[in-house]
Amino acid sequence: MKKIGVLTSGGDAPGMNAAIRAIVRSGISSGLEVYGIFDGYEGLVNNNIRRLERGDVSDIITQGGTTLGSARLEEFKLLEVRKKAVANLEKHGIEGLIVIGGDGSYRGAMALSEMGINCIGIPGTIDNDIASTDYTIGFDTALNTVILNVDKLRDTSSSHHRCSVVEVMGNRCGDLAIYAGITTGAEIIITKETGYDEAEVLERLRYFEEYKKKRHAIVIISEKITDTELLAQKISQHTDFSGRSTVLGHIQRGGSPTARDRILATEFGDKAVQCLIAGESSRCLGLVDGQIISIDIKEALAMPKKSRRPFFELHDRLV
Amino acid sequence: MKKIGVLTSGGDAPGMNAAIRAIVRSGISSGLEVYGIFDGYEGLVNNNIRRLERGDVSDIITQGGTTLGSARLEEFKLLEVRKKAVANLEKHGIEGLIVIGGDGSYRGAMALSEMGINCIGIPGTIDNDIASTDYTIGFDTALNTVILNVDKLRDTSSSHHRCSVVEVMGNRCGDLAIYAGITTGAEIIITKETGYDEAEVLERLRYFEEYKKKRHAIVIISEKITDTELLAQKISQHTDFSGRSTVLGHIQRGGSPTARDRILATEFGDKAVQCLIAGESSRCLGLVDGQIISIDIKEALAMPKKSRRPFFELHDRLV
Amino acid sequence: MKKIGVLTSGGDAPGMNAAIRAIVRSGISSGLEVYGIFDGYEGLVNNNIRRLERGDVSDIITQGGTTLGSARLEEFKLLEVRKKAVANLEKHGIEGLIVIGGDGSYRGAMALSEMGINCIGIPGTIDNDIASTDYTIGFDTALNTVILNVDKLRDTSSSHHRCSVVEVMGNRCGDLAIYAGITTGAEIIITKETGYDEAEVLERLRYFEEYKKKRHAIVIISEKITDTELLAQKISQHTDFSGRSTVLGHIQRGGSPTARDRILATEFGDKAVQCLIAGESSRCLGLVDGQIISIDIKEALAMPKKSRRPFFELHDRLV
Amino acid sequence: MKKIGVLTSGGDAPGMNAAIRAIVRSGISSGLEVYGIFDGYEGLVNNNIRRLERGDVSDIITQGGTTLGSARLEEFKLLEVRKKAVANLEKHGIEGLIVIGGDGSYRGAMALSEMGINCIGIPGTIDNDIASTDYTIGFDTALNTVILNVDKLRDTSSSHHRCSVVEVMGNRCGDLAIYAGITTGAEIIITKETGYDEAEVLERLRYFEEYKKKRHAIVIISEKITDTELLAQKISQHTDFSGRSTVLGHIQRGGSPTARDRILATEFGDKAVQCLIAGESSRCLGLVDGQIISIDIKEALAMPKKSRRPFFELHDRLV
Repeated sequence: MKKIGVLTSGGDAPGMNAAIRAIVRSGISSGLEVYGIFDGYEGLVNNNIRRLERGDVSDIITQGGTTLGSARLEEFKLLEVRKKAVANLEKHGIEGLIVIGGDGSYRGAMALSEMGINCIGIPGTIDNDIASTDYTIGFDTALNTVILNVDKLRDTSSSHHRCSVVEVMGNRCGDLAIYAGITTGAEIIITKETGYDEAEVLERLRYFEEYKKKRHAIVIISEKITDTELLAQKISQHTDFSGRSTVLGHIQRGGSPTARDRILATEFGDKAVQCLIAGESSRCLGLVDGQIISIDIKEALAMPKKSRRPFFELHDRLV
Repeated sequence: MKKIGVLTSGGDAPGMNAAIRAIVRSGISSGLEVYGIFDGYEGLVNNNIRRLERGDVSDIITQGGTTLGSARLEEFKLLEVRKKAVANLEKHGIEGLIVIGGDGSYRGAMALSEMGINCIGIPGTIDNDIASTDYTIGFDTALNTVILNVDKLRDTSSSHHRCSVVEVMGNRCGDLAIYAGITTGAEIIITKETGYDEAEVLERLRYFEEYKKKRHAIVIISEKITDTELLAQKISQHTDFSGRSTVLGHIQRGGSPTARDRILATEFGDKAVQCLIAGESSRCLGLVDGQIISIDIKEALAMPKKSRRPFFELHDRLV
Repeated sequence: MKKIGVLTSGGDAPGMNAAIRAIVRSGISSGLEVYGIFDGYEGLVNNNIRRLERGDVSDIITQGGTTLGSARLEEFKLLEVRKKAVANLEKHGIEGLIVIGGDGSYRGAMALSEMGINCIGIPGTIDNDIASTDYTIGFDTALNTVILNVDKLRDTSSSHHRCSVVEVMGNRCGDLAIYAGITTGAEIIITKETGYDEAEVLERLRYFEEYKKKRHAIVIISEKITDTELLAQKISQHTDFSGRSTVLGHIQRGGSPTARDRILATEFGDKAVQCLIAGESSRCLGLVDGQIISIDIKEALAMPKKSRRPFFELHDRLV
Repeated sequence: MKKIGVLTSGGDAPGMNAAIRAIVRSGISSGLEVYGIFDGYEGLVNNNIRRLERGDVSDIITQGGTTLGSARLEEFKLLEVRKKAVANLEKHGIEGLIVIGGDGSYRGAMALSEMGINCIGIPGTIDNDIASTDYTIGFDTALNTVILNVDKLRDTSSSHHRCSVVEVMGNRCGDLAIYAGITTGAEIIITKETGYDEAEVLERLRYFEEYKKKRHAIVIISEKITDTELLAQKISQHTDFSGRSTVLGHIQRGGSPTARDRILATEFGDKAVQCLIAGESSRCLGLVDGQIISIDIKEALAMPKKSRRPFFELHDRLV
């Protein structure tokens, strides 16, 4: 293998740039040429491909987002579209490809592997929603962003005897909510796993108020579970707290990556290069039991996400 | 004058604690006893009043929110309610009162002044919506919070060829939007003063895209002008940008105060004490032409807010 | 076991409060009374002990430092001093003790265990210098503080063609330096493990300048290896970079804890309570292969610290 | 006037990029061509000059440092050196020059003005050490950096009954120290203006300890007044506090600029362009009584810096 490529796909996540930097430099240190593919699979199909040198990735380790750009391309499911991608890679002589993204991006990588391009997936999504790894690039930064903002809400909540309802990202996976709930000392955490029962939420808030003498309260809830504005109104009506809703939204995707996101992204990037050199294909990387390992993508996609029950029980003891 | 009181009223703002600290310590240094009144005018009516010593305000200069709590009390407009407040103050021998808040809080202070309590108002609101001062406590912190978050959105916007629509606080006053727009390099700023024309917004975005080759764009808009979610959808439909809406909400109220909010709040607090000692009443403080001055509250409430036209013209030159 | 105590010892670390909160609340949830011992072993000897309720630890999860205070007490090595400590614990009926700190604190806990008090150690030090665990409370926050500040130095270094020499904490253990070096993209990392050769440092800087065309450079170095001010002067004299030294110092100990420090401190605190309930003694907790486990303190103290050679090799590939 | 240039000179300061952006875009909006001169006066002499377009300054408003680079050039005092500079400007047809920097940079601008190049100075230095303006670009960011770090030191100081001695920048001017002292609630502030008496410092610390029952203390001191490490040792020896010294150093120069630095730098940049268009020369800008004005450079350099006595008196009332 002489030439490899890298692309970022799906939603961007802080730390993707650290992975790109590691891939470029580790690749060059191992004697490879490294090519950046811009705007995800779209750029692969449109031949938006450029060779990257060491200097091209200087200082990007500190930047959020992805300097390669990202996009979603539904049509990549189609064989004829993927054939274009393979043709473009062959034109450049690129034999190995590293894809940074989530499950959807892995599916693309798996399909390309079957067409003769050696592909390695790196888990990059702020949602931590990939079953085959304990950690995805961007999750730690997103979580710290949530914490910073909930700490700000705490200031104003406690000044006004308020209950802040905070919606965080995580459509398929409640990790951001459960981790944020524990680390901010939230009173209530609602995710897909807990289920949602409005009456129960209101009752628990009244309980905290009467029996635990709380002057303010925080409810963390995953996106797409309920209308948080309505929940806040109900809280104002049915408890002595004044309810206020905040949807953190896309600010959770941005920001300079944290130490943990930088270091693990760097390790993933370096490891992916070593995997390609070793001739691996159709595999994705994961952090499992503290070690960085590679797993067959097909197996990875079939794994069920771990239950967070132990965390919910921990939260119950601490609230 | 031997005893003075302090309360915070209306929406809380970072820096209120710095003002409280300055009032307590400057008051004690001048030989006064200082009383904290909790939860705004409500605490005044309910006699929720406690003497504060130097040590009671240690380290609060770093904290957001207000350690005295705040609340809105519509009934304070009623004479009989205010009579209770005056009776409580007299019970404690408190002859002077410092009220930190916005225009509504000033009206309460003016009414109390007419009933024999010497009152001084300090401008404390993140909206910068008080006409009689160039600056209100909390505005600088809120503005920096907006900037930090828009900088995060920029990361993710530029990764995805997006247009971020960001709603900031400021119902009656567009200062947060216009200052945030200039300091984040936003493409479009929409406030009450500019008015809102959806077709024009879409046309300008298309112009930025085609003629200025912008890969991403930011629109800053004051609250209660339009539904930002709908505007984002329209942007996705009618331009090549993918529109995304973010409502920053209550996080703008929180956070450790910035240098500027700490220093000006401290100066306001100290000055308010000197005003009471000098026998002033029914006056509010302001920063005007770089100086801290006091103005008659009635006059202050009648002033029109300055136009920000020069800033909009500046923005046009820079975009 | 009905009553347990908790103390923090040695240098403070962000996240200690999160552990204290977890111990208090998890203990109470398990039917125990929990006592706070103030100022470390000194408070144990001086009977500075107070029962803690749920509300006493409200909101401390967000605070750096330790609300219990910390101190070093050399005399705790003496049997007669420890007898006083045991007598005080017995007076309160405290049968189990959780000690948050480093190796020195573990030794005290081991000695107390031998005198009949069940003791559990929790690793709390920003240096990550405890061999029996992959992670110590406070390390992640300290590392992020270093990164934030080196990112600031990068701004000014690149404006002036400078080489910034940055001294970070870690007397016995170079983890802060090596992790900071990788995550900030530093050109050179110097720790006890690498050794220090001034001529080699200067030569490598000249190499980076000439062959890699670097406009600025960063050197991260552990404390107590060399005088960084002198090194900076040598850099100015013997390379084309203008050398500047920065000693980050005690700011590395402070700040609101990161997500990772909050969550792991919380898990450690909860686990320590479970260990005491299970009758364990003279054991310390660790994060090993991603799991929280308990180890005999004597064994733990005898373990050698893992080599960071793989990280240095990674750094070489990336620079 | 058709073509203007801009350079940054002396120590870099956050916000310089915001000024550069404003100059480039405001200049182009007014029909001018704008040229960037790299590495200060050195680049002027070496003809390191390049035309800048709107897109060249995209997003730099968020970045610390200066994208134009900066350098000190002692030889610029020599007429023959300045003749080279003038020749280079004439070669490009540049008739007006905006210099962002401190007093030294102003002297260069004054000298060039006498040689027929219209020059306008913008105050850019984190020290706030320019007498002709109440504010210099970078001061607000540096001050907020100091506050953030002192707040971190407070965490660890209060955990250990410590006195933190913090050295901040400001060789000729104590503004960073006095503003930081007030906004962090420091016990003692030492600047050139206060003078330094070690015995008095120790006595005041003992007083705070005994009479005000302070558990920790903070001393803020300007650079080059005394050896802070030695002072910390004396504090450990002669008071009950454990003294610790921190030299904040160059981190005060870095970081993304605050709102205030961004907005004022933008206004200064825009105003400087208007001044050149109006035919002004040998003038520097200032913020005086809340207004942006221009002053003759010669007069500006002769002004004495305002005394900060009122701030020291304010500090005495609050401590």
